[in-house]
Amino acid sequence: DSLNQAQYDTVYNFFSLVIAAQLFASIFMLVSLNRVLPRYRQAMTVAAVVCGIAAYHYFRIFDSFKTAFVTDAVGGRGDYVQVAGASFNEGYRYVDWLLTVPLLLLELIAVLALARRVQTRLLARLIPASALMIALGYPGEISGDDGLRGLFGVLSTIPFVYILYVLFVELTRSLDRQPASVRKTISQLRLLLLLTWGVYPIAYFLPMLGLDGADAWVGKQLGYSIADILAKALYGLIIYRIARMKSFADD
Amino acid sequence: DSLNQAQYDTVYNFFSLVIAAQLFASIFMLVSLNRVLPRYRQAMTVAAVVCGIAAYHYFRIFDSFKTAFVTDAVGGRGDYVQVAGASFNEGYRYVDWLLTVPLLLLELIAVLALARRVQTRLLARLIPASALMIALGYPGEISGDDGLRGLFGVLSTIPFVYILYVLFVELTRSLDRQPASVRKTISQLRLLLLLTWGVYPIAYFLPMLGLDGADAWVGKQLGYSIADILAKALYGLIIYRIARMKSFADD
Ligand SMILES: CC1=C(/C=C/C(C)=C/C=C/C(C)=C/C=O)C(C)(C)CCC1
Ligand SMILES: CC1=C(/C=C/C(C)=C/C=C/C(C)=C/C=O)C(C)(C)CCC1
Repeated sequence: DSLNQAQYDTVYNFFSLVIAAQLFASIFMLVSLNRVLPRYRQAMTVAAVVCGIAAYHYFRIFDSFKTAFVTDAVGGRGDYVQVAGASFNEGYRYVDWLLTVPLLLLELIAVLALARRVQTRLLARLIPASALMIALGYPGEISGDDGLRGLFGVLSTIPFVYILYVLFVELTRSLDRQPASVRKTISQLRLLLLLTWGVYPIAYFLPMLGLDGADAWVGKQLGYSIADILAKALYGLIIYRIARMKSFADD
Repeated sequence: DSLNQAQYDTVYNFFSLVIAAQLFASIFMLVSLNRVLPRYRQAMTVAAVVCGIAAYHYFRIFDSFKTAFVTDAVGGRGDYVQVAGASFNEGYRYVDWLLTVPLLLLELIAVLALARRVQTRLLARLIPASALMIALGYPGEISGDDGLRGLFGVLSTIPFVYILYVLFVELTRSLDRQPASVRKTISQLRLLLLLTWGVYPIAYFLPMLGLDGADAWVGKQLGYSIADILAKALYGLIIYRIARMKSFADD
């Protein structure tokens, strides 16, 4: 497959955008740590770490992209083709997710500052389920075979649905004790989570619908980039906002 | 296009100047954070993050420039031509702006410490308008076509004018409650904003006026560099000054 210059530049710029967004969201949250009460700093530290991990992985993805596609046109004004001896490594994303997806769930539970018992019970379900979801998706992603892709995709969807069940049914029961304004923001946060996390399985199943070629590939990279910014950086900033509101309410 | 050595060196030195100015403005503001009252730290943190994001992007711009133009003259005393296989990526600037322009408006509103309701109302107008302005400029910038450049430029000017309207008409109404000395500094800040932000659309429309060639290109890079220093680093330092004055006034 080859990319034209506009496609190449756009992917390039989006990867760089993700690096900047994650890196500076992370720095912003670290600097703002002592603007919330100590009991909410755990959640914010985790949010900052998640964005830092994402920035690291996007440095790698960016680099992998730059090495994998080359042109020989003067001023880069030509087609970019895949080079011999290097590949664009899609597997990176799963490494990132394996670390960040459980941490994103931890952030969400930590900022609620629920009773320790409730917190432990929720995390004991969410964290293993999320790790399992990512681990089951990986073999499907790297296999070239549509059958295997479908099989592991469906297996991975089981823990995904279970996570949504825990968040939307079980967690709801623990929300009455939160201040009203916080309850609203948490609902928004959960909605953001649903909308952004939904992007990943959709992108995963797209190649099976016959959507292929350079445009589909570029679309997928942009989709992942935007979803990653929303699901980590914006999500972290909303966690910060919740922590600020609760810090005022508790005072 | 090719650059002579003086042109190449000048662009090189200006890019490096921007990196130094943004990076150390950012560090200065982070270090000075606790010299202002807590209620102004949000604005200053955002100002520091904006300069940090700009420093990051100028590292990339610098790098892109160094890879894109090469010479084979001994001691570099010759003409610099565009290399095969790499381009000078102008699109970066839009990625930078997409993040920093909304944040610059956020800084301005945050340092005023207006009533929460007024603040939310102003930001709900300024932030989407500024994101729209940048997003509409991008397709025009990367298209080689003068017609498309003109069309998207005009479309992007609509939110730009709207932003100026909100800042110069609506915001004015909220300024009476600021201390007199602060009011003056805020007016200066707004003027700085108008003068520096005006540079970008002018630079955008220049190629359509037939101003082209190496000199025009070098002029554009220097213009952007100076405007970026004024609109982010100097602007941030004025925000700091306002925050200091208000911290004394509030005490
Ligand atoms: C259901 C499902 C998947 C779910 C992936 C998800 C939900 C990933 C979330 C990633 C996040 C939130 C990243 C951080 O920003 C896979 C593994 C694609 C495989 C196909 C089935
Ligand atoms: C009106 C207009 C534009 C405005 C750009 C502006 C106002 C950019 C501001 C950038 C800043 C402030 C950067 C940070 O320092 C574009 C997009 C060039 C396209 C043409 C029309």
